[in-house]
Amino acid sequence: MTSPIAAIILAAGKGTRMKSDTHKVLHPIAGRPMLLHLIDSVAALDPARTVVVVGAGREQVEAAVRPLGAETVEQAEQLGTGHAVLQAEAALADFTGDVLILYGDVPLVTAETLRRMLDRLHMPDMPATVVLGFRPADPGAYGRLMVDADGSLRRIVEFKDATPQERAETLCNSGLMAVRSADLFRLLARVTNTNAAGEYYLVDLVQLAAEDGRTSAVVETDAGEVSGVNSRGELAALEAEWQRARRARAMAEGVSLVAPDTVWFAHDTVLGRDVTIEPNVVFGPKVEVGDRVTIHAFSHLQGAKVSTGADIGPYARLRPGTVIGEGARVGNFVETKNAVLEAGAKANHLTYLGDARIGARANIGAGTITCNYNGYLKQRTEIGAGAFIGSNSALVAPVRIGDGAIVAAGTVVTQDVEADALSLTRAPQTAKPGWARKFREVMQARKAAK
Amino acid sequence: MTSPIAAIILAAGKGTRMKSDTHKVLHPIAGRPMLLHLIDSVAALDPARTVVVVGAGREQVEAAVRPLGAETVEQAEQLGTGHAVLQAEAALADFTGDVLILYGDVPLVTAETLRRMLDRLHMPDMPATVVLGFRPADPGAYGRLMVDADGSLRRIVEFKDATPQERAETLCNSGLMAVRSADLFRLLARVTNTNAAGEYYLVDLVQLAAEDGRTSAVVETDAGEVSGVNSRGELAALEAEWQRARRARAMAEGVSLVAPDTVWFAHDTVLGRDVTIEPNVVFGPKVEVGDRVTIHAFSHLQGAKVSTGADIGPYARLRPGTVIGEGARVGNFVETKNAVLEAGAKANHLTYLGDARIGARANIGAGTITCNYNGYLKQRTEIGAGAFIGSNSALVAPVRIGDGAIVAAGTVVTQDVEADALSLTRAPQTAKPGWARKFREVMQARKAAK
Amino acid sequence: MTSPIAAIILAAGKGTRMKSDTHKVLHPIAGRPMLLHLIDSVAALDPARTVVVVGAGREQVEAAVRPLGAETVEQAEQLGTGHAVLQAEAALADFTGDVLILYGDVPLVTAETLRRMLDRLHMPDMPATVVLGFRPADPGAYGRLMVDADGSLRRIVEFKDATPQERAETLCNSGLMAVRSADLFRLLARVTNTNAAGEYYLVDLVQLAAEDGRTSAVVETDAGEVSGVNSRGELAALEAEWQRARRARAMAEGVSLVAPDTVWFAHDTVLGRDVTIEPNVVFGPKVEVGDRVTIHAFSHLQGAKVSTGADIGPYARLRPGTVIGEGARVGNFVETKNAVLEAGAKANHLTYLGDARIGARANIGAGTITCNYNGYLKQRTEIGAGAFIGSNSALVAPVRIGDGAIVAAGTVVTQDVEADALSLTRAPQTAKPGWARKFREVMQARKAAK
Repeated sequence: MTSPIAAIILAAGKGTRMKSDTHKVLHPIAGRPMLLHLIDSVAALDPARTVVVVGAGREQVEAAVRPLGAETVEQAEQLGTGHAVLQAEAALADFTGDVLILYGDVPLVTAETLRRMLDRLHMPDMPATVVLGFRPADPGAYGRLMVDADGSLRRIVEFKDATPQERAETLCNSGLMAVRSADLFRLLARVTNTNAAGEYYLVDLVQLAAEDGRTSAVVETDAGEVSGVNSRGELAALEAEWQRARRARAMAEGVSLVAPDTVWFAHDTVLGRDVTIEPNVVFGPKVEVGDRVTIHAFSHLQGAKVSTGADIGPYARLRPGTVIGEGARVGNFVETKNAVLEAGAKANHLTYLGDARIGARANIGAGTITCNYNGYLKQRTEIGAGAFIGSNSALVAPVRIGDGAIVAAGTVVTQDVEADALSLTRAPQTAKPGWARKFREVMQARKAAK
Repeated sequence: MTSPIAAIILAAGKGTRMKSDTHKVLHPIAGRPMLLHLIDSVAALDPARTVVVVGAGREQVEAAVRPLGAETVEQAEQLGTGHAVLQAEAALADFTGDVLILYGDVPLVTAETLRRMLDRLHMPDMPATVVLGFRPADPGAYGRLMVDADGSLRRIVEFKDATPQERAETLCNSGLMAVRSADLFRLLARVTNTNAAGEYYLVDLVQLAAEDGRTSAVVETDAGEVSGVNSRGELAALEAEWQRARRARAMAEGVSLVAPDTVWFAHDTVLGRDVTIEPNVVFGPKVEVGDRVTIHAFSHLQGAKVSTGADIGPYARLRPGTVIGEGARVGNFVETKNAVLEAGAKANHLTYLGDARIGARANIGAGTITCNYNGYLKQRTEIGAGAFIGSNSALVAPVRIGDGAIVAAGTVVTQDVEADALSLTRAPQTAKPGWARKFREVMQARKAAK
Repeated sequence: MTSPIAAIILAAGKGTRMKSDTHKVLHPIAGRPMLLHLIDSVAALDPARTVVVVGAGREQVEAAVRPLGAETVEQAEQLGTGHAVLQAEAALADFTGDVLILYGDVPLVTAETLRRMLDRLHMPDMPATVVLGFRPADPGAYGRLMVDADGSLRRIVEFKDATPQERAETLCNSGLMAVRSADLFRLLARVTNTNAAGEYYLVDLVQLAAEDGRTSAVVETDAGEVSGVNSRGELAALEAEWQRARRARAMAEGVSLVAPDTVWFAHDTVLGRDVTIEPNVVFGPKVEVGDRVTIHAFSHLQGAKVSTGADIGPYARLRPGTVIGEGARVGNFVETKNAVLEAGAKANHLTYLGDARIGARANIGAGTITCNYNGYLKQRTEIGAGAFIGSNSALVAPVRIGDGAIVAAGTVVTQDVEADALSLTRAPQTAKPGWARKFREVMQARKAAK
């Protein structure tokens, strides 16, 4: 039997160093606000409650987290981490179980690590608090975790208060903590602000527990997992770290990345086996790619499902609502949006397919445009199986091209085309012999006259 | 006088860690299967015989190597490297000379290094075997080469059998070897599989030669040259290494790479002097670029010859069969395929030129499409010197536009156009005054009604 | 009161290792010739005179620097750095003040560092020369600066003449120097070429000053700032260094770079707050981006002003003369040149807008081309506010589309369109029932017959 779980996520600091109108914890990593990455990890533990402590910019944060079932409490004044956690006390008044204390700007901690923290809380020595520690390349000014010979956490020393001997300790405090709810608020009530900053510090819990004869424990993890974001530079560094890990996973699972450093995945990209991705490909959210698909250089995919054996790009832009059938092909300078290309359909060049269905094996000529928008409405184009759309055609929606029909090059289709018919709108080709020569003479004379 | 040369290339392991339906040694580096890179290096030595030992996936490997004149022998069971080499004995029954033992998944060893190995075999001390050694950054679990004071190779110690003193040796065994054919198969016959794995190990040759009172020798090379590929991550690392070296060579030869890390060459890219390549350019195979060419950002070239002073991109896609003349220009969102642009011709924007010849100084307007495909046949478009093709024209092949002719904007050309003539297909422009206002009123009313 | 300032910039060496017809100091960094970066830094000090010492390729260098008000003197023979500086003596005959001696191929030294050198020259100890020193990761063969306990520069030791003890010194000579004009040419007159190379060395000034009982001083700076360029590899390294610093500055100022390493700025790029730049964006010179603009992946901007809240790309190419209004949008595969898109205007796909004004809130359909060029003249297109241009239209300039007008899809507009009117050029749509089926039968029979 496991205890119920609650998470308190501190997200009151707006992050002035970001220099942004967007709240710090809502800046995205891999296309998803960093706070939601963290809530996703918490959600994997099936928590009873997720409470986000908000302050400046609270409306933005609330709007982002409510759809995920998280609640918010306000920290009106910023009086320290201990004070921030205390704001959740009323909200958790009727909760009994384990509490994780997390930070919206430390978003990449994994569910597995959180689980290890909770498990540690229930080991036979029954520590009062479990602190997540890490060993950064440069411990710098992090608080140090002083651990006894038996592995229990004696105390947390702030860097500025540390002796040289204590500073030599390389195990640092991430700030993340697991505590039973009963202990948490009882101990927090005793935290004081009699320090230089006049703030209530969460780390005091360890000392207060010790005063009660209770031990604390450390769970250790990689430094990368507890990296925090205070600036756009750190945001980019975390994005890079996330991408590096994701690329390695893709390759391990059987995806060829010719140039891994130039492929950018979204948080939810799904990739099949023997997929090949050439240099410089960007994935927005909600992309699913089947087996044996090749995505050529300079492609950009978002909200698209690409089936087995399809061939995409280079310079293909798949927008939301795109479904590419088996063995279908989307070539260079082609944009699709809310468009289904059935199996074996081809749109090789310079085309816009929006709000459309392209039947199996249909061939869309270069320069074809589905005119799906009249300034007010978006309307649909249906192209039948095996149809052939000549180059530079405009298909004015709503319109249907029957199976096996041919649309001649340069046609503007405004009426439905029957199956197996040819459709065209074409003025006769007329010639004016010698006209071009005369035109040149006139233009050259005019130029010379200047 | 040099001895005849044979190469035995081990390629029986399919490479399960690749998680691929493609055999490991056929995964590409710089656009060419890695095994063929190795065979290219061997070919530079003018070998009498190249024998590839195949196993799982042999059909794929055979199909790839036969066009290069390599033969294959099968290793039905995987009983160790010594066993693998032994499979080539019958094939080399009538060969007398020097044998190189190579690995299909160690593809970037150079001809120069192979030559050094062969030369060493014929130095006055006449070693029985020559082993290629390297000093990796982390020797890890590689076999160590124990070398005597006189430089001769005493023995090869597997890591697991090595004493701490032996593990301190940094010179490691790459596995690559040169042996006279007469020695090779005689010694191999004495290799046994009385070891924990029950395999026949090639490294035993050194020990067996020593038992005969023969010496062995080491030739040393850079670690990068003998990197092997067992996963897609290692494949990407080797690709990156290859690209780094190629970019450095390009710059040393007088090519400006604004952002070297973002330019991807193919194995056979040829570049002139004072070529400038902007960020994010991808070269597929068979590209030749003349002097003083600029290739702007986001361009993709494959199977294309670009002449002196031409200007390509940004966002140009040159496909196989493209020939760009001196000073010609291919601009953004332009695709060419099997197309010749003669000197000074220009296609600046949003164009597809397929199966076409564009005469000298001709100007192809934005949005021009050569309609080269009717669903069954590819047909040609000929555009004369100095012709001017108006924007959004469709040229329906087969068709010829004469020298100096003008095609008006929006024309669909289905009949040949005489030199110096103007050609057009155009319905008269009609106006419906006030129509747009009424349309807006109707649409707005409809929206309001919803 | 500050002394007048003159700069002597050595740029006589053409740089054979560049393998280029372009003079070494004219190769660009961030889109601007490296020499001009240096002259920009000098200009920030408001110098009385800037003298560039030229030699091989002098015409190229002169043409580049004259527009900035710099003068040139020739060094006909290359007889050493001391000799090079001496060539400026006549030009500075009537100049009295402080002289900075700089190198055209050491282009990234900052005005702040130059200012520190000049300030040091006027400190109470009044040194005769001030030398700019740096501590490289690998001091290699650089000259070493031997500094006394009181911080004064005793002498400069060439690496080849240095004792092991002297070589252990890590402070190296960048070659950059500040000297009063009166001292400079008096001391230079005493420099001899009685050394192995037969050259006149500038570093001898320190020794000669010491012989007169004068001290010299060192100002230290970062190694990156005094990196020199002798090859295209070093040029790329300096470009990378410049870009790294520029990206960091952008992020610190409130710009989000999803993938900083893939964004390339120009020397004069201006960016607002809360700008988001996706991976793979290239800035050419003269781009100004307002607040809250998003630039999507694979975009290329040059000579463009983008206003608040605009949305650019992916795959947008903005060329010189582009002005994008507030909240306007330029989408994929769209090129603009000398084009103004007023507030809220949209050109979402596959469009070329050249020499055009697009009125506020106008909507430009996919495949629209402004035909601005007739082979001789560039002419303008005016599109009114709220106009709607149907897809695949060609607007043949000079032409005006009135406010609120609609152009039907596929229209070739050659005459002005009144406000609120509909304009179209369209042949009636005709159908040939069954034609496509018959065509397929004929083509399949023909294929079968082959």
